[in-house]
Amino acid sequence: METGHWGWGDGLTDALGGVRARAESFFGKLSEERPRSPRVPAPRVEIPRTLRAFSTAEAHDRAMHTWGKSYVDRVRGFRGDFSAAPDFVVRPRTEAELETVLEVCERNRLAAIPFGGGTSVVGGVEPRLGKNHQGSATVDLRAMCRVLEVDDISCAACIEAGAVGPVLERQLAPQGFTLRHFPQSFEFSTLGGWIATRAGGHFATLYTHIDEMVESIRMLTPRGVWQTKRFPSSGAGPNPDRLVCGSEGTLGVITQAWVRIHRAPVYRASASIHFRDFAAAAGASREISQSGLFPANCRLLDAQEALLNQVSTDGASVLLLAFESADHPLDAWLERGVAVAEAAGGRREAATTGKAEAAESWRSSFLKGPYLQDAMIVLGVLADSFETACTWAAFPGLYAEVMEATRAALDRVCGCGLVTCRFTHVYPDGPAPYFTFLGKAKRGGEVEQWAEVKQAASDALVRAGGTITHHHAVGRTHRPWFDQERPEPFARALRAMKRELDPAGILNPGVLFD
Amino acid sequence: METGHWGWGDGLTDALGGVRARAESFFGKLSEERPRSPRVPAPRVEIPRTLRAFSTAEAHDRAMHTWGKSYVDRVRGFRGDFSAAPDFVVRPRTEAELETVLEVCERNRLAAIPFGGGTSVVGGVEPRLGKNHQGSATVDLRAMCRVLEVDDISCAACIEAGAVGPVLERQLAPQGFTLRHFPQSFEFSTLGGWIATRAGGHFATLYTHIDEMVESIRMLTPRGVWQTKRFPSSGAGPNPDRLVCGSEGTLGVITQAWVRIHRAPVYRASASIHFRDFAAAAGASREISQSGLFPANCRLLDAQEALLNQVSTDGASVLLLAFESADHPLDAWLERGVAVAEAAGGRREAATTGKAEAAESWRSSFLKGPYLQDAMIVLGVLADSFETACTWAAFPGLYAEVMEATRAALDRVCGCGLVTCRFTHVYPDGPAPYFTFLGKAKRGGEVEQWAEVKQAASDALVRAGGTITHHHAVGRTHRPWFDQERPEPFARALRAMKRELDPAGILNPGVLFD
Repeated sequence: METGHWGWGDGLTDALGGVRARAESFFGKLSEERPRSPRVPAPRVEIPRTLRAFSTAEAHDRAMHTWGKSYVDRVRGFRGDFSAAPDFVVRPRTEAELETVLEVCERNRLAAIPFGGGTSVVGGVEPRLGKNHQGSATVDLRAMCRVLEVDDISCAACIEAGAVGPVLERQLAPQGFTLRHFPQSFEFSTLGGWIATRAGGHFATLYTHIDEMVESIRMLTPRGVWQTKRFPSSGAGPNPDRLVCGSEGTLGVITQAWVRIHRAPVYRASASIHFRDFAAAAGASREISQSGLFPANCRLLDAQEALLNQVSTDGASVLLLAFESADHPLDAWLERGVAVAEAAGGRREAATTGKAEAAESWRSSFLKGPYLQDAMIVLGVLADSFETACTWAAFPGLYAEVMEATRAALDRVCGCGLVTCRFTHVYPDGPAPYFTFLGKAKRGGEVEQWAEVKQAASDALVRAGGTITHHHAVGRTHRPWFDQERPEPFARALRAMKRELDPAGILNPGVLFD
Repeated sequence: METGHWGWGDGLTDALGGVRARAESFFGKLSEERPRSPRVPAPRVEIPRTLRAFSTAEAHDRAMHTWGKSYVDRVRGFRGDFSAAPDFVVRPRTEAELETVLEVCERNRLAAIPFGGGTSVVGGVEPRLGKNHQGSATVDLRAMCRVLEVDDISCAACIEAGAVGPVLERQLAPQGFTLRHFPQSFEFSTLGGWIATRAGGHFATLYTHIDEMVESIRMLTPRGVWQTKRFPSSGAGPNPDRLVCGSEGTLGVITQAWVRIHRAPVYRASASIHFRDFAAAAGASREISQSGLFPANCRLLDAQEALLNQVSTDGASVLLLAFESADHPLDAWLERGVAVAEAAGGRREAATTGKAEAAESWRSSFLKGPYLQDAMIVLGVLADSFETACTWAAFPGLYAEVMEATRAALDRVCGCGLVTCRFTHVYPDGPAPYFTFLGKAKRGGEVEQWAEVKQAASDALVRAGGTITHHHAVGRTHRPWFDQERPEPFARALRAMKRELDPAGILNPGVLFD
């Protein structure tokens, strides 16, 4: 079955095989639907002359740049709906070409949509027109994908924004380095996209968001080049890089960044700890996050999530604890981490110390998650996830409220459903809970079903003290809750900056603000 | 000898006793000068009626709010020069009073200068009038100094902005917590001042700047309340707190913040490691900073600095390495840290493991530094420090260039002089070198002498790839180099925000931008 125009990638057949029996055990007999051929509207504008050498208006290219990869994006694509397609796609190969793109878009009143891997799950790359716009151009950065320089003394590298995860890691590996930033979209998403959306890497505590890895950024704005200098830290005014992180393509297009890289780990130590009680497991996660041990991974799965992932089948919540180092053996670290978990009521299940490859195989299985979502769409299962971060004090209340609100919405919308929770990240002051929900889809009504569940879940998150997103970004989907979350004077400040740097409003209209 | 109106605090007699012989061994016989009585100009404006209940126009109060505590500030005060005095000082006790202050200043065309401990060394609290201003009011926040709430589950506390270091630590201690943020000004500076200036705490790696400790901020702007929510982390748009950190009182007045706090350390382990060669010592610091061991302290003194501090007298550079934890013994951590340093050519001198108080006594001696500067002024010695951060790759060149340029300037200006270097902070990608210089002052000509050395040193820093400040902030003193450092579109964005939030330009005119 073809997934090229709508799915995550080439993995559907495998995913269907792996997931069908499990899905049917919840939802009964499921039938497969076939994707429809893409319907792409005719372009509203022609490609401006100066951009022709590196642009395309082919229907397939435009379809591939229409949506991100959220559940509803993929459902729309599956049904052949590419109504939001950009009028053309530009693929600048140099900064000079990109500069021309911004000039031409401003002059010709075209919205310019920066596009990295196109893996946004929040409507971050979906073209919209601002007022007075004649059409839209999606600016695909992936032709700019080189590691330009490695500073092996300072452990930093200058990398072009369009490099996707495996491409940049492949260039760093021969010199013994890794960026070690693993968002779930790692296979397809780009450095520039990570920075623009404040992506969070998995299998990490301490350095989780890309924000912490950025040493300096180069961004083209419609009003000049935003280039920061390379400093390990500075106290000179507000940090300009922190304004670019999370700007989601609204202030400029990121072209390069110096990022902090790590020597590839040599030592690894890990353990799985099982808990009868989720609250006790959350308590153990908290204590480890406040211990100063800084595990490479501290990931908690509740009983349902552990069952879905076949990590435990006896109703236990599972804490996955791992340490990594390029410098020293980790026995003391793991021993103490496990002791903390055991004192909180956990039972150690398995441990590996040394140069084990367990972490690698586990990571590669994690990266397969989005392929399963493709399979769910084919099988008619509503399947999505949402995530947040809150304080440890707020977590028990948030967990209860969000689970309840999401389950109630699924009952209403799908008849029944399943909600699971894990901690993807933990901080000394709170966890980043990640929720997955599954329900029986009404063929053709998925978008409305999803919207109702999403609304209920997001309202509950915000009511209970969570942020609307820990690492999925704001885009267009999270706007209503982001608008409640950010301070009003900050919104005014952002709009003032936007008017200053992008007076024609060409950059990613509708994202972050109007 | 009185220091009340010009010096760091009550410690001059002790400081003179401790430093005189050492200073004379460098500069020959030194004589003591006596401070002059303060000359404070008459106020240009009266205190507006609605502010009278919590304001003063007494000459002493106005003198105490005229300058910060830089070398030149103290020299000016020592000579009785208080020409920049604010017209009056307001001491709001509540947010409602502060709101009135901002309204009244805007209405009456008065510059409003936010003031915490007044320990700025960059001209950050010195009143200047913007265009159209009639006068100036300094807004002293120290009446707002309570710890309002401790969340002992999430390890965070809500603290009013005017709390000085010891005041907030005293309120946290009974509950077993510490903020553990120790700028050298700790004794006098405030939480709000730390946030506004991106202060750096000493005896820290990993969590160095206050930026990393902030969970949420409340700031009054002339256009409304900027209140962020408490999240351990978020990916929702650019981080609003990071725009407040380093805003130096130009966008609003910080009134409270939730900050991450730590359980008071129980375990400590430390060692001093001596190196014949400064380059080897720097290399060891680099390897430790890249090891993932995260020492509580990793501080390197070059031979001159070690001599001045009487830490070594045989020409060795000294690396002070310390670990702290509330959770676990640190033997494995210290052992590995020392092994890395020894492999880089160091020789371990002394080690203490356990609940030693060495770190405490050393910290208290460090906090005495600014008192020595008072003594130098009395003795007629030009004495100041400046600091930066750069990549490890840039450091050898920066060290050579800055030492050379500063020595040459001292030779020109003072006949001779002494320059020392230490690392106050180290990061995986680079150190924060801190330079101290001493020279014979020309009585009455100190300000000009200082300005020439400062210019030479700052030009060299920037030329060699350093930031103009790692933790002293920009203020008015560092403006020329800050203006070269920040990207031009960022400056435009900042000015646009300023116009939006403070259209009358009342807040701290001349700081960060015009």
